[in-house]
Amino acid sequence: MSKFEEKTIQSETVYEGKIINLQIDEVELPNGKTSKRELIKHPGAVAVIALTEEGKIVMVEQYRKALEKAIIEIPAGKLEPGEEPALTAERELEEETGYGCGKLEHLISFYTSPGFADELVHLYVAKDLYKMEDAKGPDEDEFVELLEVGLEEAKALMKEKKIYDAKTAYAIQYLELQAAAR
Amino acid sequence: MSKFEEKTIQSETVYEGKIINLQIDEVELPNGKTSKRELIKHPGAVAVIALTEEGKIVMVEQYRKALEKAIIEIPAGKLEPGEEPALTAERELEEETGYGCGKLEHLISFYTSPGFADELVHLYVAKDLYKMEDAKGPDEDEFVELLEVGLEEAKALMKEKKIYDAKTAYAIQYLELQAAAR
Repeated sequence: MSKFEEKTIQSETVYEGKIINLQIDEVELPNGKTSKRELIKHPGAVAVIALTEEGKIVMVEQYRKALEKAIIEIPAGKLEPGEEPALTAERELEEETGYGCGKLEHLISFYTSPGFADELVHLYVAKDLYKMEDAKGPDEDEFVELLEVGLEEAKALMKEKKIYDAKTAYAIQYLELQAAAR
Repeated sequence: MSKFEEKTIQSETVYEGKIINLQIDEVELPNGKTSKRELIKHPGAVAVIALTEEGKIVMVEQYRKALEKAIIEIPAGKLEPGEEPALTAERELEEETGYGCGKLEHLISFYTSPGFADELVHLYVAKDLYKMEDAKGPDEDEFVELLEVGLEEAKALMKEKKIYDAKTAYAIQYLELQAAAR
């Protein structure tokens, strides 16, 4: 049994969407009382740290309706049902940036919002990038613009809040740590 | 206008919860077509990197119903309406760990899941920790266990997937970067 386990008394899926489901669980707490938990079920996602030959970080700018603004992120996308995360990573890199890669290494996976969602992001490092001649484009409801930025420029974009999300902040810190170790 | 802006044609809040709301927007895409966006509205949250005098990282283990398991995280909690994030950080540190701090510095803020949620996490570094004698405990539906772990131990806990979330992974990488810069 997991520590402080909350036993499910009742579970109801109140919304089933294209991407997320909303599930309301009534739980028994460790002290015997009950509470409600509002839970988002998500298929999981990947994100890719990709450096060009010139050492620039491959990024995409896209509008995020949840934030009502465009931000700049590393390439990312959600898992299709049953899809191997490494394949999703290659696919998203191709669709969003037109880059293929010779090597893809898993770096870390983490839950983005464990308080209310089960979204797990798998972060990869793509190496030996090359421009694909016949790259597939993004999904038909997805509009992204490719950017290639140096590490110092990326840090400036964070100060301006143009780079503003957890996976991209983690990626930049990872590259800083790599640079510091050199 | 923000790049690739998606204009709201219709917006409906389909669920209003204690913590999150679910909103479905019909949007006009840059190419004139329409699409649906499933959006989670969240009040925002704080998280705290707190080091003891011995250089241990203050962490809490708690059950996360969304994941159906307990994980180990840095102290964190959601914002109350109108609450200043720095105050939330001090409050959560006290309630979850019994520690007060002499100094609290804002490190970074990031969106956890910009693809579907507007949750913004504000990450703080707490310094000059001291044990409070009359610390308030956690919320009545919250059960946490205090842990104090060294950096190497934290990295081992990541390998074991006991530490498994974005803000805590960011915090550990931050401490690694601080150590590398020394």
